[in-house]
Amino acid sequence: MSIFNVELKKVVDDTYDIEIGYNLSDTLVSDLENGLAGKIKKFAVITDTNVRDPYALPICEKIKHAGYSVDLFVFPAGEKSKSRETKAKIEDAMLKKGYRRDCCIIAVGGGVVTDLSGFIAGTYGRGVPFINYATTLLAAADASVGGKTAIDTPLATNTIGLFNQPQKVYIDIAAWKTLPQRQMASGMAETIKHACLGSEDMFEFIEENLDDIYSFKKFACEYIAENNCRIKYNVVMKDEREAGLRETLNLGHTVGRAIETVSDYKLLHGEALSIGMAAQALMSARLGYMSEEQAERVIKLYERAGLPTRIPDYIDREELVKKLYTDKKVRDGKLRFVLQKGIGATVEFAPGVYAKPIEESLAREIIMEL
Amino acid sequence: MSIFNVELKKVVDDTYDIEIGYNLSDTLVSDLENGLAGKIKKFAVITDTNVRDPYALPICEKIKHAGYSVDLFVFPAGEKSKSRETKAKIEDAMLKKGYRRDCCIIAVGGGVVTDLSGFIAGTYGRGVPFINYATTLLAAADASVGGKTAIDTPLATNTIGLFNQPQKVYIDIAAWKTLPQRQMASGMAETIKHACLGSEDMFEFIEENLDDIYSFKKFACEYIAENNCRIKYNVVMKDEREAGLRETLNLGHTVGRAIETVSDYKLLHGEALSIGMAAQALMSARLGYMSEEQAERVIKLYERAGLPTRIPDYIDREELVKKLYTDKKVRDGKLRFVLQKGIGATVEFAPGVYAKPIEESLAREIIMEL
Ligand SMILES: NC(=O)c1ccc[n+]([C@@H]2O[C@H](COP(=O)([O-])OP(=O)(O)OC[C@H]3O[C@@H](n4cnc5c(N)ncnc54)[C@H](O)[C@@H]3O)[C@@H](O)[C@H]2O)c1
Ligand SMILES: NC(=O)c1ccc[n+]([C@@H]2O[C@H](COP(=O)([O-])OP(=O)(O)OC[C@H]3O[C@@H](n4cnc5c(N)ncnc54)[C@H](O)[C@@H]3O)[C@@H](O)[C@H]2O)c1
Repeated sequence: MSIFNVELKKVVDDTYDIEIGYNLSDTLVSDLENGLAGKIKKFAVITDTNVRDPYALPICEKIKHAGYSVDLFVFPAGEKSKSRETKAKIEDAMLKKGYRRDCCIIAVGGGVVTDLSGFIAGTYGRGVPFINYATTLLAAADASVGGKTAIDTPLATNTIGLFNQPQKVYIDIAAWKTLPQRQMASGMAETIKHACLGSEDMFEFIEENLDDIYSFKKFACEYIAENNCRIKYNVVMKDEREAGLRETLNLGHTVGRAIETVSDYKLLHGEALSIGMAAQALMSARLGYMSEEQAERVIKLYERAGLPTRIPDYIDREELVKKLYTDKKVRDGKLRFVLQKGIGATVEFAPGVYAKPIEESLAREIIMEL
Repeated sequence: MSIFNVELKKVVDDTYDIEIGYNLSDTLVSDLENGLAGKIKKFAVITDTNVRDPYALPICEKIKHAGYSVDLFVFPAGEKSKSRETKAKIEDAMLKKGYRRDCCIIAVGGGVVTDLSGFIAGTYGRGVPFINYATTLLAAADASVGGKTAIDTPLATNTIGLFNQPQKVYIDIAAWKTLPQRQMASGMAETIKHACLGSEDMFEFIEENLDDIYSFKKFACEYIAENNCRIKYNVVMKDEREAGLRETLNLGHTVGRAIETVSDYKLLHGEALSIGMAAQALMSARLGYMSEEQAERVIKLYERAGLPTRIPDYIDREELVKKLYTDKKVRDGKLRFVLQKGIGATVEFAPGVYAKPIEESLAREIIMEL
């Protein structure tokens, strides 16, 4: 018998830039020319059917014009495409087109495109680099920082995936103008969540400037784009030292994700989250972590943003309670919730512990009321 | 416009042990009790239909007996199972059984089981730990060091996957006795490859002790198990500094992998590799990197080990030439081969470059002869 020690210690540098601005396709191409993707000359642009014409095609044209080889891979828009099947189809199409490991993937679109493309990049030939060009507020608010990529399975969302950091993220605020209002509101759901968990100032800014955000005023859009990044980044970075903090980003998601699945994706992610945020606000107030008034303020802001804060009638509430157990925070068969502490913070139940075990009866009580 | 810098630098410590010995299931369980998988109490044992009864079930029983929760996930034996479909089925079965991120996967079997399980572990809930219990010589010789995991797609083998290091690897030499002779020989193909690329001493040892290996003499089996690890480890570790060296492990694989696919897996990986090793030996001799006699010695040892060294008649040689272009070493549409330099070394064509661009005409010439 002998033991062989494989020593594998290394410094990984996944540092990258997030550029926030208007119409960033020229910037993207000049970044490529300046070595953003190293010596790579072959690009696979992945997008969906809605984003193809207004944003992905022009980017392809510019990349081609700069002398690179580029192909466009398009899948049907919508959360249902964030699946193993779409992943396989794009991989096979790339393989057929002769893509090897010396390529770079560019995701152009919302969170579905960036989540799926980042996952494809992480496993294509055991990993190729990728770049995100985010065209929705939700992708800007959330998918751009943290490196989470995934697909959904019939049983739950984001179940299979990996952590994978892009080479760079572009947040094109100009693209928000063509977003359907429902999608813009869905992005505001995560934006308000960031304010709730990380900054009372930001919460007040949104209360005061919601109309300016919705009419795409520059100062307002830039404020939320930057603060979304800042808050999520702070949490994600601190989590490198203080494991567990990252769970605070899950605020509102225990009920939110379950509703999203049970609604069979009739509700958008942000709409489901909005109801989940209302649920956690009520729960936080019930447990004394915030006042009734503060919970009301949270729910009111979500309503003003055009988002639902009550569970739709077509949802089977008992099924919803069962679905809570597919949440990733469940430990030893017990539900765990992140809770809000006043406005702009979350509760730290014990050092480094931000998710509190909750009795099913309390969760059910709130779901039945909502 | 504003730029936000996400700083992500960290030290990753993926150090792990490979334990080489006989009947290591008790060692595995006592390692778990001593914290090998941290606080994890839930284990998913993945295996195939051949390995289930003799090795995986007893391991499950022992893990259960030690007070842990454990389930067995079994797929049909064979390379055809190293697919997206098997990956999805096992993931869904794990999800249905309530597996979350607080679990550990234990792969019990050959390279198909360890490759597939390591890939599943890398993407299940964005990553859970895994342990390899290798029951074939091929898995011991090769899959145990390096952290490569993957599945095959209809277009080529090992196309989709990731680098993922296990918590520990067990190499159970006792398990080799129940291996069909064809499988044992297939493992010898990688073993002889290691000798060819890394150690003339090892090559001579195998020439002298082949019968003792095939009759499972302890000194002979331990020698090859240890030297396989040592050679592969040296290459993989040096590659951390000297990118490109890892390509030397690809010796024989350009033609080997193509034959494996074109034969529709009628040939085992090692059998296909054996023919690929013959091809590269002839090519190396033709280009003056080894003598005709040395090439003969390589081919002869493969033959003595009971392996094919000629392309079977049912293989369409023109299709095979085309298939070479699906090789991962192809750059800018050009074939690249790793070549042997005498016995025990490979050719370094330029500093850090171990794969040489080869004209299709030369590759075709050798394929037509073989
Ligand atoms: N990785 C992460 O950390 C993370 C965080 C939050 C959410 N997500 C994921 O993000 C997804 C939701 O993101 P999303 O709302 O951006 O989804 P999405 O990509 O489906 O985009 C929403 C819709 O808007 C369309 N669209 C995109 N950009 C447009 C534009 N500029 N103009 C007009 N239409 C446009 C899309 O075609 C789609 O129909 C979910 O799958 C969620 O799980 C990931
Ligand atoms: N990850 C890596 O670095 C790496 C390196 C080399 C090869 N591989 C992969 O490994 C695979 C081939 O490995 P393999 O030959 O071990 O394949 P395998 O797992 O299919 O095992 C070969 C056969 O032996 C059976 N078997 C396994 N252990 C047995 C035992 N102890 N007694 C009796 N039967 C047993 C299996 O059921 C199977 O039928 C290929 O998919 C190849 O791509 C991976």
